[in-house]
Amino acid sequence: MTGFAIERLIRTLSRLPGLGPRSARRVALALVKKRELLMEPLMQILEEVSRDIRLCSICGNLDTVDPCSLCTDPKRDPAVLCVVQEIADLWALERAGVFRGRYHVLGGVLSALDKIGPNELHLNTLVTRVTETIIHEVILALGTTIDGQITANTIAELLKDSKVIVSSLARGVPMGGELDYLDDGTIITALQARQPMHSSTLPLLSGKSKA
Amino acid sequence: MTGFAIERLIRTLSRLPGLGPRSARRVALALVKKRELLMEPLMQILEEVSRDIRLCSICGNLDTVDPCSLCTDPKRDPAVLCVVQEIADLWALERAGVFRGRYHVLGGVLSALDKIGPNELHLNTLVTRVTETIIHEVILALGTTIDGQITANTIAELLKDSKVIVSSLARGVPMGGELDYLDDGTIITALQARQPMHSSTLPLLSGKSKA
Repeated sequence: MTGFAIERLIRTLSRLPGLGPRSARRVALALVKKRELLMEPLMQILEEVSRDIRLCSICGNLDTVDPCSLCTDPKRDPAVLCVVQEIADLWALERAGVFRGRYHVLGGVLSALDKIGPNELHLNTLVTRVTETIIHEVILALGTTIDGQITANTIAELLKDSKVIVSSLARGVPMGGELDYLDDGTIITALQARQPMHSSTLPLLSGKSKA
Repeated sequence: MTGFAIERLIRTLSRLPGLGPRSARRVALALVKKRELLMEPLMQILEEVSRDIRLCSICGNLDTVDPCSLCTDPKRDPAVLCVVQEIADLWALERAGVFRGRYHVLGGVLSALDKIGPNELHLNTLVTRVTETIIHEVILALGTTIDGQITANTIAELLKDSKVIVSSLARGVPMGGELDYLDDGTIITALQARQPMHSSTLPLLSGKSKA
């Protein structure tokens, strides 16, 4: 093959999530062929991110400042804490634009298979935050996988003696979902957790909804 | 969302081929979370590629030297020229390891839809190479798309008056292919171009086969 540097670029790219050898080759070629359009902007922005972006020492979010702008935003409710698995989940919630409290990024979920125990996650800092600051409610926004649910149960157990409300995202039929295409588990859960048409048992979230 | 730099990184990544907004987010997160393992090696190798890699002015291949190492390799037969659409196709042929001649990268194929005419491709340089150097055979290794075939026919027409043999890759059932899964076009072509079980009409390629 031509040029060791290109081969190394392909190997480096193929280590990124979602890129295999073939797609890494495509990306490498595109980068080399469109230097001004793709390669140079990518180099610049990587430089900038590498220099400026850090993890928030409170919530685990990424930002140019520590604590991050979400943790220091006076308009966000410090009494409601949303626990997510990964930063990508935090971003998904922020894109939805309805949650106006603060976050706590676990950095993963408990997993016996992947050898991820409580010490690999930011569980201790979560308990510290809950006990040392004024938090009324902890919303567990974890995935509905087995590992996610075990993690949610573990957190609920850890926070049992504190006085916070521990809630989790509702399970049910996703918006735009057709029953025909849903798995049995979702249908069973949605049926068991069926709701009266006019009710609101939990207090509405502060902030404005996108709807 | 957190940090403008990250958003810009995601936007830049999502312009790469094969990456959409979601996969770009995943890649950006992986880069930021694994700085030493992913981001820094990528920055280094991009730097190196950007500094060292150039297009070969003869064949259009990428290398650290111009002319490229394939064009100057004395062990490769200068009389056999393989015409490919893109550098990725050249790489695919090199991986197969059986072709020991030289290459000519067109940089695309003729396409009325994409407004790619003869002037957008390296067709003139191909004709110049064929007329000004000692070339016996031009192998057209273009895709079997309509555009690829139109381009192949155009090249065959352009080289009609020169004395070179113009050939193209065989069409037929791919290795490991099962008839049941093949499209009608391939089956028809393979049937029409059926071959006697013991024959070799074209001279064998120089160099050693992988088989």
